[in-house]
Amino acid sequence: MSYYHRHVFFCVNQREPGTLCCNNFGAQAMRDYAKERVKALKLDSKNKRIRINNAGCLDRCNEGPVIVVYPEDVWYTYVDKEDIDEIIEEHLKNGRVVERLRI
Amino acid sequence: MSYYHRHVFFCVNQREPGTLCCNNFGAQAMRDYAKERVKALKLDSKNKRIRINNAGCLDRCNEGPVIVVYPEDVWYTYVDKEDIDEIIEEHLKNGRVVERLRI
Repeated sequence: MSYYHRHVFFCVNQREPGTLCCNNFGAQAMRDYAKERVKALKLDSKNKRIRINNAGCLDRCNEGPVIVVYPEDVWYTYVDKEDIDEIIEEHLKNGRVVERLRI
Repeated sequence: MSYYHRHVFFCVNQREPGTLCCNNFGAQAMRDYAKERVKALKLDSKNKRIRINNAGCLDRCNEGPVIVVYPEDVWYTYVDKEDIDEIIEEHLKNGRVVERLRI
């Protein structure tokens, strides 16, 4: 069994102004929102074992903002909190990949 | 096939002085070293697809410094560059888990 049932990495990289990067799309705020939601839903509990993490540049800048869910290796982009809510509810909680946000 | 053949996250979290965290053990410098070595060995090439990343706190502070290799979900601790070299050579390059460093 994997240490974390689902381990989610948000690219929160900030590059120089004028350069494409995930944090131009508010990635850090979205990661913070996701972490709060996962905690509120108790998905970070010992039996659920969902972990939300910051990460440096994941090198998919042109497709950003991006997150990756391991160990499943499912990659997503997102626009707003509704997208994050859907990923949390559908994928992290219920194990159903959100195809419309997949990259 | 996974996007990255092996995606390695170094916890580089820095907590307040006196608090246990991976960067007390020079995690950022070790991550930078690992990234340089992987590049020098061309393991970051398109056909090898090994990626070294920074990450925030991975929440295994008592076992730190820690890294995790996905999608395999293999966790390691390390002490020095020799340990990092062994993980790169044995695991990242040749696919053999380094049991003595596994946590």
